[in-house]
Amino acid sequence: MERSRSRTAAEIAEIVGARVAGDGSVAITGLAPIDDAGAGDLTFLANPRYEKYLNSTGASAIIVPIQYDGSPLLEGRTVLLADDAYVAFAAALAVFDAGPESIMPGIDPSASVADTAVLGEGVSVGPCAVIMTGASIGAGTVVHAGAYIGANSVVGEDCTIFPNATLKRSVTIGDRVAIHSGTIIGSDGFGFAWDGEQHRKVPQIGTVVVGDDVEIGANVCIDRATIGATRIGRGTKIDNLVQIAHNVEIGQSSIVVAQVGVSGSTRIGNGVVLAGQAGIAGHIEIGDRAVVAAQAGVMGDVPPGENVSGYPALKHSLSKRLHAGIRNLPSLFKRIKEIERRLDDLDKEA
Amino acid sequence: MERSRSRTAAEIAEIVGARVAGDGSVAITGLAPIDDAGAGDLTFLANPRYEKYLNSTGASAIIVPIQYDGSPLLEGRTVLLADDAYVAFAAALAVFDAGPESIMPGIDPSASVADTAVLGEGVSVGPCAVIMTGASIGAGTVVHAGAYIGANSVVGEDCTIFPNATLKRSVTIGDRVAIHSGTIIGSDGFGFAWDGEQHRKVPQIGTVVVGDDVEIGANVCIDRATIGATRIGRGTKIDNLVQIAHNVEIGQSSIVVAQVGVSGSTRIGNGVVLAGQAGIAGHIEIGDRAVVAAQAGVMGDVPPGENVSGYPALKHSLSKRLHAGIRNLPSLFKRIKEIERRLDDLDKEA
Amino acid sequence: MERSRSRTAAEIAEIVGARVAGDGSVAITGLAPIDDAGAGDLTFLANPRYEKYLNSTGASAIIVPIQYDGSPLLEGRTVLLADDAYVAFAAALAVFDAGPESIMPGIDPSASVADTAVLGEGVSVGPCAVIMTGASIGAGTVVHAGAYIGANSVVGEDCTIFPNATLKRSVTIGDRVAIHSGTIIGSDGFGFAWDGEQHRKVPQIGTVVVGDDVEIGANVCIDRATIGATRIGRGTKIDNLVQIAHNVEIGQSSIVVAQVGVSGSTRIGNGVVLAGQAGIAGHIEIGDRAVVAAQAGVMGDVPPGENVSGYPALKHSLSKRLHAGIRNLPSLFKRIKEIERRLDDLDKEA
Repeated sequence: MERSRSRTAAEIAEIVGARVAGDGSVAITGLAPIDDAGAGDLTFLANPRYEKYLNSTGASAIIVPIQYDGSPLLEGRTVLLADDAYVAFAAALAVFDAGPESIMPGIDPSASVADTAVLGEGVSVGPCAVIMTGASIGAGTVVHAGAYIGANSVVGEDCTIFPNATLKRSVTIGDRVAIHSGTIIGSDGFGFAWDGEQHRKVPQIGTVVVGDDVEIGANVCIDRATIGATRIGRGTKIDNLVQIAHNVEIGQSSIVVAQVGVSGSTRIGNGVVLAGQAGIAGHIEIGDRAVVAAQAGVMGDVPPGENVSGYPALKHSLSKRLHAGIRNLPSLFKRIKEIERRLDDLDKEA
Repeated sequence: MERSRSRTAAEIAEIVGARVAGDGSVAITGLAPIDDAGAGDLTFLANPRYEKYLNSTGASAIIVPIQYDGSPLLEGRTVLLADDAYVAFAAALAVFDAGPESIMPGIDPSASVADTAVLGEGVSVGPCAVIMTGASIGAGTVVHAGAYIGANSVVGEDCTIFPNATLKRSVTIGDRVAIHSGTIIGSDGFGFAWDGEQHRKVPQIGTVVVGDDVEIGANVCIDRATIGATRIGRGTKIDNLVQIAHNVEIGQSSIVVAQVGVSGSTRIGNGVVLAGQAGIAGHIEIGDRAVVAAQAGVMGDVPPGENVSGYPALKHSLSKRLHAGIRNLPSLFKRIKEIERRLDDLDKEA
Repeated sequence: MERSRSRTAAEIAEIVGARVAGDGSVAITGLAPIDDAGAGDLTFLANPRYEKYLNSTGASAIIVPIQYDGSPLLEGRTVLLADDAYVAFAAALAVFDAGPESIMPGIDPSASVADTAVLGEGVSVGPCAVIMTGASIGAGTVVHAGAYIGANSVVGEDCTIFPNATLKRSVTIGDRVAIHSGTIIGSDGFGFAWDGEQHRKVPQIGTVVVGDDVEIGANVCIDRATIGATRIGRGTKIDNLVQIAHNVEIGQSSIVVAQVGVSGSTRIGNGVVLAGQAGIAGHIEIGDRAVVAAQAGVMGDVPPGENVSGYPALKHSLSKRLHAGIRNLPSLFKRIKEIERRLDDLDKEA
């Protein structure tokens, strides 16, 4: 699909750390999904669901897990055998990547950069972007068009703040962080105290601290803390339309899938996975490496390593048993009716 | 409510293709909901829920389905009888529509349009809008204030890109497409490969292709494909705050209601309805004309024409039976207790 | 954490309406959560969950509910006894609040303000903000960077429109309203009528009316009505990523938590609480002071004062009983098996 460069299969194999089986001299000019690939395309097989396309795919070469070595399914094919086919394919994508959102180097004349803002070496600022007083932007960082960096905020080095993203005042962003379009970092936490007549606003005077190597998707909200900080740990990746409430703390290398909501003051460990649309109550703890299934509603602590699902969320194995029980409810009602009939018969006999 | 013009009921009937019963000369100066309409207002009845307001409404005329012809409920009223009251009302709305978001013709001096961008005839670009290098905007399209069109993106003719919408680089938008405010088209898909130490980003080098006559609501996210394209078919309508992940394909004339999430690589057919807050797993297929109920969690393929609901989503008729079973659980426990008592009695007798 | 000012505990007690027990002369220089507070910090205890930190917290003073007066847990501590510890803490936060998102007074030269827009006294308009023709902005209101105020919209006095928020044409906002970043007010309602061949757009010619003292979080969508108005009542507070569809009416002092979705034409009373991720069907009524639990799916009217939860949402007490029943399903299946065995034995005996 992308035709910017041409490489041989063997060259790509070397770059991605795979071993070639078949003709390594075949020219690769692009990448495509297995069911859509044609001549010149490299594709991959990581999910066995797609094995059915191995026979028909028009791809010139296929990255497969090492286990497929010698498989008759791949006879006559140029194959790149990799320890992890998906990691290898990710590396191949980088070879053909046309690069990030384009921007002109330097500060666009239509951008608004406060006199007291401090910009590191090589910072680029796109059209109509706004950088407020006292903000600090690390070397190599790109602030795209229409993005807003609030007063006294600190953005690290080599970050990408995508078009129309908003970082409110006094937040802190680490190095190599990507914040996608439409995302709001440091908006007020949702805090009100009922005084008997009205909901009085609880001032949100805390901040948000985002660690190094974090990626935050589009239209995400990460609220500033009431006091202290809402924290996103190093290497954590957050998908689109996620809500992170005030004073939440997320550990390192966790994954938060689209449309998840995490309520206030909850602590989430390292290596946790929160699947799409899951909701997490406030003031609870999700232990390291826990996995919360899609759409789950978590209302209490989850121990490290536990898998939970359902509403209210339970250990996944239990949740599955209960769902199986529900599926069998109609048969249960029938069995009970039959039991009652037998009892009536016995009563009549007696 | 809107008082821009005055028409007789008979004139409107002709425009919307309805037949007048009663006094067609009555002046209509605006439109209002049935429970809020006063003199001069035209209203409509499509949902029988609102029949109770027929007696009390102050409306000067009412659009009703043809079945109401001669109904005593409408005695003395000016009535517009239509095959489809809602379609007729939609046409009447167009008569009184004050028009779209206003904009000055031409390119606002505060907009930033790259030298290499190509703008068709009659294109308008609002204040502080940004059009990057190599982008192409079709004739008659309006790019409102603060919107961003990324490098090399192609937008068709007669489109409306509303204020503060964001189209990233190299996406393709058909003709007569509306993209509402805050929506992000072509942000990176959520792809990471664990390399044993960290989540490594999988470059997202694909694109997004949106067909003709699509409307996309506010604060929606449609991610670019890893490779290939995320596709939205002709005539499909997407509501607010929807998440469409990378490599998803949606067919023609489908309806995606607010806050739905569709996971990566899933294929959705033509004429499908995904109701509000439904979640669809990745790598599955939803057949043509299938209907997914609100909040459903769909974890496997759905055949064409099927209605599904619940979590995990099941055929709607089964889902309803299971919910009825759950509602009867307390009585079930009572029946079992009674059965055990009877058995104990029998045992004692024996 | 925030070190802008120093006050004695007794001074703060007077400001927040609390009574000091212990040494009132201790200097307070900031505020912190109970498990993170150090010397100079004031903290608070409102949720008994955090009582375990009373012993170890490094805070110099603690706001507690009046019931803790004389508690041995607080021996030797400087304590501020308050009728409502959270309300008192909110007042203390205001003492140390560094103030709102910063902005320069007046109209930034990069802002685009239409000649026919009317700005009240003391209005500030940030960089690259856009105010369209005929819009009216009340005295003391701040329109932050990148925000958009559509043609003929009316914004009241002392409002804050945060960076990159979007108010479409002809909407009406009361006084002292806060609209956070990324939020879209007055986008088209999702209305289409199937004409046998395609979904035809139903023009959305109504508006949005937001009452005084409303706060609307980040990335929220409140759609304009088809006809008439979508209404948000005085003092209602809306969290992030919420969807309010066309013609919805919400009463006064209600609370709508993050990621809630309310479908078209539904009416929500005063003092209602809709907890996170709840979904509300269209054309129904939620009575005053009703509480809808997190992730609930409400498909019919809810009477005033009722608590509902689950999908489909039921009275919370019933919903809890049904969930308990589901938890007991495995034991139920065992009991039925045992019953059938006993019946078989009886049959054999007979």
